[in-house]
Amino acid sequence: MSFFDLYMNRNPLITSSDDDTEPVATVFGVPFDSTHSYKPGCRFGPDSIRDSFNNIEIFHPDLQVNLETVNIEDLGNTRHTVVASEMIDMVKKITTELVAKQRQLFILGGEHSITYGTYTSFPKETGYIVFDAHYDLRDEFADIKLSHASYLRRIVEERGSENILHVGARAFVKEELEFLKENNIKTISDREIRDGKGPRLVKEYVSTFDSIYSSFDLDVLDPAFAPGVGNPEAVGITSRELFDMIYPFQETKVIGADIVELNPYHDNGSTASLAAKIISTLIAMNLSPNQ
Amino acid sequence: MSFFDLYMNRNPLITSSDDDTEPVATVFGVPFDSTHSYKPGCRFGPDSIRDSFNNIEIFHPDLQVNLETVNIEDLGNTRHTVVASEMIDMVKKITTELVAKQRQLFILGGEHSITYGTYTSFPKETGYIVFDAHYDLRDEFADIKLSHASYLRRIVEERGSENILHVGARAFVKEELEFLKENNIKTISDREIRDGKGPRLVKEYVSTFDSIYSSFDLDVLDPAFAPGVGNPEAVGITSRELFDMIYPFQETKVIGADIVELNPYHDNGSTASLAAKIISTLIAMNLSPNQ
Amino acid sequence: MSFFDLYMNRNPLITSSDDDTEPVATVFGVPFDSTHSYKPGCRFGPDSIRDSFNNIEIFHPDLQVNLETVNIEDLGNTRHTVVASEMIDMVKKITTELVAKQRQLFILGGEHSITYGTYTSFPKETGYIVFDAHYDLRDEFADIKLSHASYLRRIVEERGSENILHVGARAFVKEELEFLKENNIKTISDREIRDGKGPRLVKEYVSTFDSIYSSFDLDVLDPAFAPGVGNPEAVGITSRELFDMIYPFQETKVIGADIVELNPYHDNGSTASLAAKIISTLIAMNLSPNQ
Amino acid sequence: MSFFDLYMNRNPLITSSDDDTEPVATVFGVPFDSTHSYKPGCRFGPDSIRDSFNNIEIFHPDLQVNLETVNIEDLGNTRHTVVASEMIDMVKKITTELVAKQRQLFILGGEHSITYGTYTSFPKETGYIVFDAHYDLRDEFADIKLSHASYLRRIVEERGSENILHVGARAFVKEELEFLKENNIKTISDREIRDGKGPRLVKEYVSTFDSIYSSFDLDVLDPAFAPGVGNPEAVGITSRELFDMIYPFQETKVIGADIVELNPYHDNGSTASLAAKIISTLIAMNLSPNQ
Amino acid sequence: MSFFDLYMNRNPLITSSDDDTEPVATVFGVPFDSTHSYKPGCRFGPDSIRDSFNNIEIFHPDLQVNLETVNIEDLGNTRHTVVASEMIDMVKKITTELVAKQRQLFILGGEHSITYGTYTSFPKETGYIVFDAHYDLRDEFADIKLSHASYLRRIVEERGSENILHVGARAFVKEELEFLKENNIKTISDREIRDGKGPRLVKEYVSTFDSIYSSFDLDVLDPAFAPGVGNPEAVGITSRELFDMIYPFQETKVIGADIVELNPYHDNGSTASLAAKIISTLIAMNLSPNQ
Amino acid sequence: MSFFDLYMNRNPLITSSDDDTEPVATVFGVPFDSTHSYKPGCRFGPDSIRDSFNNIEIFHPDLQVNLETVNIEDLGNTRHTVVASEMIDMVKKITTELVAKQRQLFILGGEHSITYGTYTSFPKETGYIVFDAHYDLRDEFADIKLSHASYLRRIVEERGSENILHVGARAFVKEELEFLKENNIKTISDREIRDGKGPRLVKEYVSTFDSIYSSFDLDVLDPAFAPGVGNPEAVGITSRELFDMIYPFQETKVIGADIVELNPYHDNGSTASLAAKIISTLIAMNLSPNQ
Ligand SMILES: [Mn+2]
Ligand SMILES: [Mn+2]
Ligand SMILES: [Mn+2]
Ligand SMILES: [Mn+2]
Ligand SMILES: [Mn+2]
Ligand SMILES: [Mn+2]
Ligand SMILES: [Mn+2]
Ligand SMILES: [Mn+2]
Ligand SMILES: [Mn+2]
Ligand SMILES: [Mn+2]
Ligand SMILES: [Mn+2]
Ligand SMILES: [Mn+2]
Repeated sequence: MSFFDLYMNRNPLITSSDDDTEPVATVFGVPFDSTHSYKPGCRFGPDSIRDSFNNIEIFHPDLQVNLETVNIEDLGNTRHTVVASEMIDMVKKITTELVAKQRQLFILGGEHSITYGTYTSFPKETGYIVFDAHYDLRDEFADIKLSHASYLRRIVEERGSENILHVGARAFVKEELEFLKENNIKTISDREIRDGKGPRLVKEYVSTFDSIYSSFDLDVLDPAFAPGVGNPEAVGITSRELFDMIYPFQETKVIGADIVELNPYHDNGSTASLAAKIISTLIAMNLSPNQ
Repeated sequence: MSFFDLYMNRNPLITSSDDDTEPVATVFGVPFDSTHSYKPGCRFGPDSIRDSFNNIEIFHPDLQVNLETVNIEDLGNTRHTVVASEMIDMVKKITTELVAKQRQLFILGGEHSITYGTYTSFPKETGYIVFDAHYDLRDEFADIKLSHASYLRRIVEERGSENILHVGARAFVKEELEFLKENNIKTISDREIRDGKGPRLVKEYVSTFDSIYSSFDLDVLDPAFAPGVGNPEAVGITSRELFDMIYPFQETKVIGADIVELNPYHDNGSTASLAAKIISTLIAMNLSPNQ
Repeated sequence: MSFFDLYMNRNPLITSSDDDTEPVATVFGVPFDSTHSYKPGCRFGPDSIRDSFNNIEIFHPDLQVNLETVNIEDLGNTRHTVVASEMIDMVKKITTELVAKQRQLFILGGEHSITYGTYTSFPKETGYIVFDAHYDLRDEFADIKLSHASYLRRIVEERGSENILHVGARAFVKEELEFLKENNIKTISDREIRDGKGPRLVKEYVSTFDSIYSSFDLDVLDPAFAPGVGNPEAVGITSRELFDMIYPFQETKVIGADIVELNPYHDNGSTASLAAKIISTLIAMNLSPNQ
Repeated sequence: MSFFDLYMNRNPLITSSDDDTEPVATVFGVPFDSTHSYKPGCRFGPDSIRDSFNNIEIFHPDLQVNLETVNIEDLGNTRHTVVASEMIDMVKKITTELVAKQRQLFILGGEHSITYGTYTSFPKETGYIVFDAHYDLRDEFADIKLSHASYLRRIVEERGSENILHVGARAFVKEELEFLKENNIKTISDREIRDGKGPRLVKEYVSTFDSIYSSFDLDVLDPAFAPGVGNPEAVGITSRELFDMIYPFQETKVIGADIVELNPYHDNGSTASLAAKIISTLIAMNLSPNQ
Repeated sequence: MSFFDLYMNRNPLITSSDDDTEPVATVFGVPFDSTHSYKPGCRFGPDSIRDSFNNIEIFHPDLQVNLETVNIEDLGNTRHTVVASEMIDMVKKITTELVAKQRQLFILGGEHSITYGTYTSFPKETGYIVFDAHYDLRDEFADIKLSHASYLRRIVEERGSENILHVGARAFVKEELEFLKENNIKTISDREIRDGKGPRLVKEYVSTFDSIYSSFDLDVLDPAFAPGVGNPEAVGITSRELFDMIYPFQETKVIGADIVELNPYHDNGSTASLAAKIISTLIAMNLSPNQ
Repeated sequence: MSFFDLYMNRNPLITSSDDDTEPVATVFGVPFDSTHSYKPGCRFGPDSIRDSFNNIEIFHPDLQVNLETVNIEDLGNTRHTVVASEMIDMVKKITTELVAKQRQLFILGGEHSITYGTYTSFPKETGYIVFDAHYDLRDEFADIKLSHASYLRRIVEERGSENILHVGARAFVKEELEFLKENNIKTISDREIRDGKGPRLVKEYVSTFDSIYSSFDLDVLDPAFAPGVGNPEAVGITSRELFDMIYPFQETKVIGADIVELNPYHDNGSTASLAAKIISTLIAMNLSPNQ
């Protein structure tokens, strides 16, 4: 055995204690933020999440799962492009290949537009639940049809709104509200979360699906909990409220998830640690013997 | 029509989609922080609030108001001075001119001492409600009679305490407490807010006035929600608690408001986004057909 | 009298308004972080806490105590070392000397390993209550037996676990959980705190001791409230919950306390202001006539 | 006269002491950085330059010019777009309108691609001199033909290379070198500047033109002098060397100039103060009675 | 002997290896920046210089001096005031007391206005040499007569200009130039320094005095070398040029010096390390057996 | 062929355009800074250098080398330890394995102590040239024998001083100077570099060796050029002076090199871009057909 095996890891990629077993999950990053309208920088999100993930404790006593002893496959980042359509094309092809492998998949953003490339590469019957302070339902924004502000409209146009649940919106424009209503998109509002109804409503929704894909736009959280985002929107939900809505995912199987809009330029580490905990929790839930 | 009209805006000033209609509100900044005792920098507050305001969604579904289609007048900042008395003189003259125009007025600080120049330029019968972690009732501080730590005492000396409500104090010295009691200044304490009594008490107070002026010292918030202030004071109120006390303003008419003590040196964007939301909410409430 | 007495203070050390009376408390700093595993920098913690302490209002109306008129002795920092065993040796000797003086003692960290040198220099019957997101019960970490990740195990090995209460753990590994159970270490869990049981459980515990030593690893707080730590761990307790568990200390006498793991590199001032408030509160409680 | 005239300025826009006289120069900003390949953020460049310009002393004793008493017109920023072709279209139309007014024009970037829209709107016989660590002569970059890495190639394709002088390149790829040679683009190399030949070579070049347009990609400077750029390239020229190449512009008339690639995220104020000094120097030279 | 003597130091104050011998120099700080016109924060300068000084190597082989074995007395900072006249009064009284002790004195700023209080407390025949990018000769600035922008005019009015040498000005307004000429103030210009004439001119000047007081406004340096200042002015002198003008001080005796305008908010450590080196060099020169 | 091959890279590791050919160089990182005495954080150096390297243009026209088409092998980082002796043991074993492969080797620090593990694993006849503001020749520092402040003494004790050249020292203590003289360690002083003698002296030295190992402590540079270091020492050499001393390496073969002491906490990107350029230059020189 070489000393490399003993002493070296592939850090800054996500590293596992055990590299020899079949991976329990696959991760890749999409460092894309070219359509960003306010504070750019979420292209640096994937590496920041990796760094935080490599430094948190990953034993879940409630779930009886010890992530220290499992293998997570990190494929690195997609090559650089500044063209949204190129990015989507690339992300769709990669995701499609990975979906075929039937391993829990995590995509690290990058801006929310990447979800248009990832979720639509999963089977049609997959439920979609997105946490976001915004609806991202504009028809066009800053002269472009496909951006972080319109990705969900593109998805609805392509797949319909049946399998979609939007959670936590608190800032939007009139045209988004109209599209939302016309398409009967299901929602859990900021107010419902605050009133404590979130977990039950999520549970009801996810239990109707065999498998779901979940998208976490971190700006759904109050900027106190997630300052490192491109569009901080005051007066959001707490991290406890978010995780209380994640635990009900145990009712179904999370086959894919993305964590988007993390902007390290404005983060102090809090946001990255939340992103890391979302990932470790979803993996642990997937592996839990209780499930 | 020129391409300027089509393509240019006056940003970094606050910009409106519609520049041709009568403005619904007027804004000006006072970049003054010369009497600051701990962490200077709130002189950069006005421009930081503008930047955030220009980047938030400003449609209020509850209030049925779409700020995207209204005109807001931004007069820019007062010229630079480091002398408090000069600043007050200047601010009084400007505010007096603007009060005469009977348009909702927003003053962006700068340190809290500016309020001595603004509120006192409104009619005497105007109610005054201030949110602050501190009383600002010292007789003198750091060798000066008129400073952010004593402005409210100066107001009380000039106008009496009848129309004043202080909300959220959690840090003060003995002499302030004595002055407070001697002058029977009405208060809503940090404890009362935590116990959920804030909204009702605010409602009771504001409903006794035809019009009010409101002053927001952002340090009333917990530093988790508003880190970008000159005197962060641990264990404060949440942003939800603050906005729950703003909504009852619908019982009256907010004719003027200031947002002070925002220090961009220590902000990560959270504090500025809160300041921007306070402004957009007060404008929307003022325009609301419900009112 | 010299003008020095009139105009100079010992700032950047902690300064008191009254330097002539018997000090009510003694403070020293241990700028040590050499065993830190993730984000180093808590060696700068002591000076950051001093700066914040020198700038907060320190009158406690509930406790009827005015810290403005008392004298606090600040001994400065220990000399620099990068060797944990040297640091412990030094800290033990200094603490032992100070314990003999029977004055309330505050130690400013620095990483958590310093507690192994301080608490063990107090009398054996002193109760120990520690607030921490982690158990710090590893047998070894990063090739060293004595580190911030294992200090509590070393204390238990030396003194047993009888007098120990651990509060707020939410991230740990399997071996720590096993050691915890084997040694019957008393705990208040993150869940119990969230459910509101913290204050009562703390009260029950501390009331069984004549005197206690309390250790505050600031990462027990949610990163929203305490971003400036070396190991931010998402979804923690609020500052209100922490202080609600501090007030019951009035049931006993706090003869020593440390505040550790504050990392100014990642702080925006919030964390330092919390640390300062912990100190001022513990001093005020110690002096309170109610006690 | 109103107190507004007396006390208010349009700051944060560039403000002049004298607003009533005919402006001596016009300024507008293009907050565009969507094709940026490494560190985004130069969209914030225009406002950062304004802030610095408003705070420097602007009397030039050598040039006998006092900018304190002249009027500079600031039109604000172009509206937001993330599409390069839209930005170019908009910038071309605006510049064309402004060129017709025959007033010295300054464009504040934003990334270097904007120059493709500005310079090409000036008369064909206008000389073009660009300072840049890079050639920006790629055929395509990150899947896009028009970007900060290829703008100069687009200009050469449209206008030929006759009137172009490139100054200061020190980092490039093979295809750029080939295009450079094929098109006989004139250059002053980093080595020639270091050897002190820059000023003479610039003088020779500019004296063959009645009027020139100058483009300043701030990364031409060593990162020591200009850390706030998107692509810092080590071992560049000093600020003295740059200004020694600017003074010879007195041999001709500078009718337009852009300052691009300033990224405030990575600046400490040095880069912005350099940008501001470039502008004030070019205005003063234009007004100088010596000219 | 107590363990305190062995293990504790007075850090964050400046600490010496040898606390028992007669100090060779005295230091105090003036954390005042209330008249600052652009970027406030130099009130934090004194503590930042201390921190850097405590961490540099202080053996000077050329001068044959080992500062590791000498005692430096640090008196801490003056109490807080925001009123310039109060600050000056306080600083004058303290300096006068210290001058009587005939020990080399260092004052750590704070803004440049403090020099009006310090230099004028030294004997009239003391030479004054100031390094500054600005003249600080305005009659009034931002509505105040005594500020960092006018302190030198106040000194000239009080003491005449005979003993004054100004070094390094590169940014000023017309009225300053006029006052400079009317009063025949001696200068070494930025251009003369760049041409290598600085050291000889300084030497000629200082050799006509038995003792001098030197004032270092760190903005005399190029922002590349000293980014941490309140008014960064592009294209200044290098640190080598500055120190080449300090070494000729060996021709006389430096009995007092101030280092002002260091703003830690904008520093990355470079500026503080320069300030620390200025102090250690002046002490070493004062102690040098060559002298 | 999979889309992974097409679209994914291993970024954040160093990536090459061509992964299929034999690598021309090997890189690994040692994220160790536990013995650091002042500003910790150089444990984050390796990843910061990688990020910068992945974003610079790497075509060297003078050397006729195009790094875009070669393969560089990046092994990642060593596992975490806080014990210097463990780190050295690990680094020695890894380096020894890699030396056997006879490929140009780059080690990314981390603190300077790592060089004790790397250089000593190369053949004894390998020349050693180190650039450093400090001698690192203490016998002990901060209670430890093996640290960044003493690593070179340990090397001299083990290997003698014959093959060692120290370049650029400007800050040291008496004991280091004595050891230097006793052991006749060859030096190029800061003064000699400033006087332009550096390149010739380096050339003379390296031409006596068949192969050399070079160590770059980035603090040899002036903080203006390399602010991101743990011990910034004012008034150092320029980046041009450093590279002028690197080019003479063409007289020999550089078989190994380390770049140490880069501290991203204090960097603005300048320092990382210098580190990246050192690596690309050394690789290009090694591949140059001129050689
Ligand atoms: Mn979104
Ligand atoms: Mn969103
Ligand atoms: Mn206030
Ligand atoms: Mn306040
Ligand atoms: Mn701990
Ligand atoms: Mn902890
Ligand atoms: Mn360019
Ligand atoms: Mn460039
Ligand atoms: Mn000055
Ligand atoms: Mn100056
Ligand atoms: Mn070294
Ligand atoms: Mn060094």
